Amino acid sequence: MASGQSLVPTILLLLLCIVSTAVANSIIQVVSGDRKIQIDDNLYCDSWRLSIETNNYGVWSTVPERCESFVQDYMTGYRYQSDLEFVASVSLTFAKTVELAGDGKDVWVFDIDETLLSNLPYYATIGFGTETYNETSWDEWVASGEAPALVPSLKLYEELQQLGFTIVLLTGRDEYQRNVTVKNLLAAGYTDWETLFLRATSDEGKKAIVYKSEKRAELISEGYRIHGNSGDQWSDLLGYAVANRSFKIPDPLYYIS
Amino acid sequence: MASGQSLVPTILLLLLCIVSTAVANSIIQVVSGDRKIQIDDNLYCDSWRLSIETNNYGVWSTVPERCESFVQDYMTGYRYQSDLEFVASVSLTFAKTVELAGDGKDVWVFDIDETLLSNLPYYATIGFGTETYNETSWDEWVASGEAPALVPSLKLYEELQQLGFTIVLLTGRDEYQRNVTVKNLLAAGYTDWETLFLRATSDEGKKAIVYKSEKRAELISEGYRIHGNSGDQWSDLLGYAVANRSFKIPDPLYYIS
Repeated sequence: MASGQSLVPTILLLLLCIVSTAVANSIIQVVSGDRKIQIDDNLYCDSWRLSIETNNYGVWSTVPERCESFVQDYMTGYRYQSDLEFVASVSLTFAKTVELAGDGKDVWVFDIDETLLSNLPYYATIGFGTETYNETSWDEWVASGEAPALVPSLKLYEELQQLGFTIVLLTGRDEYQRNVTVKNLLAAGYTDWETLFLRATSDEGKKAIVYKSEKRAELISEGYRIHGNSGDQWSDLLGYAVANRSFKIPDPLYYIS
Repeated sequence: MASGQSLVPTILLLLLCIVSTAVANSIIQVVSGDRKIQIDDNLYCDSWRLSIETNNYGVWSTVPERCESFVQDYMTGYRYQSDLEFVASVSLTFAKTVELAGDGKDVWVFDIDETLLSNLPYYATIGFGTETYNETSWDEWVASGEAPALVPSLKLYEELQQLGFTIVLLTGRDEYQRNVTVKNLLAAGYTDWETLFLRATSDEGKKAIVYKSEKRAELISEGYRIHGNSGDQWSDLLGYAVANRSFKIPDPLYYIS
């Protein structure tokens, strides 16, 4: 009986030890026997992410299934926020070096989705990009007008306006979505843009990289000087009539060519 | 005495618990009181790395001092190897889609330093990119001819040759370094390239992006078709006469414009 009682603190301590080690391990996800798999997935998905962010990967349709939890962790954790803040910071550093003519023709072009507005609440419901694109549910989400601002982008947007840049918005959304898009942008805090380009019916079927290049070329033909361009897709930034400096906002959720 | 003996396993278990938790924690570097600093540096440096790899950052001269251990860990650990293998893999996937004419004019262009050959042994001696460029010690390192192959690049190189691609090497090294460069490439396992472009005296003072574009334009004017281009610098890949697909090899050690 005395021997039995003396085991109680030992057993309690054992439980505490198991729990505390499990908590510590859960941070790096090596608690179970599949440590190698977890680490391999993280390495693979980290390399996959670098590959899509540098445009090495080329065309892709969905996030690899094995990377769903990686993308979820990235998008909902500190790393995405840190990356967004870093891009906004280097964008502003460049913007401050631009000598503005003061004629209102010095432009910064912003894409909208995953650049100014976050669709993470929607993507969280469809497996963080692992499910194939569903036009119906996407259109419903856009129609809700509930996309929040990407906070570092909103701050950059306001700082560029204070510096004197003219803001042009260039989105792949359709013209029929103009009202809800404007409403959403205003609700998220964006104001006083010069122009908002949406796809007209004549732009239907065009690749984003072509449509966006055409619109930038229009701006240039009207005498605007495009100093900076922020977008989460390479098709926002490449093509022709490109900006003096282009800034790739991270986006491991989807790809648009 | 009986009570004292019963404490021995408890104390041993307590020690085991402390040690196992410390080991688990050391993996994520949060064992000491400076947890916040460690995590902040890692986040900052990870965002810095993404920013340079996507060319968002623009011109830079040295790795930020606070990122020296981050870059060291990245370059000497699994992540760099994983990223290299991933880029080689997507390069090969693209290469397999190319229909070769069989006339020897289907080209893949490779840069050399940090693309085919690794200068990590040299950079490990100068703070992993945190120290300013030293032409004397760099030239001595090149003259040693001891740079090892980047293994995933060597494998890709050989696979491209087996597919029938003509290999062209285009480096910012100087013409006077041709002999040692050839010797180093052969020692590292690279053979049977078609051409090795080095900077002639007439190329001195040219930005890399201009010099490399000129050389690619020469190739095209001679009837070569540049399908792929692998390089660790954006100045290897951008400019004009660019390849159908360009592949950015990771390199957080230095920047060449």
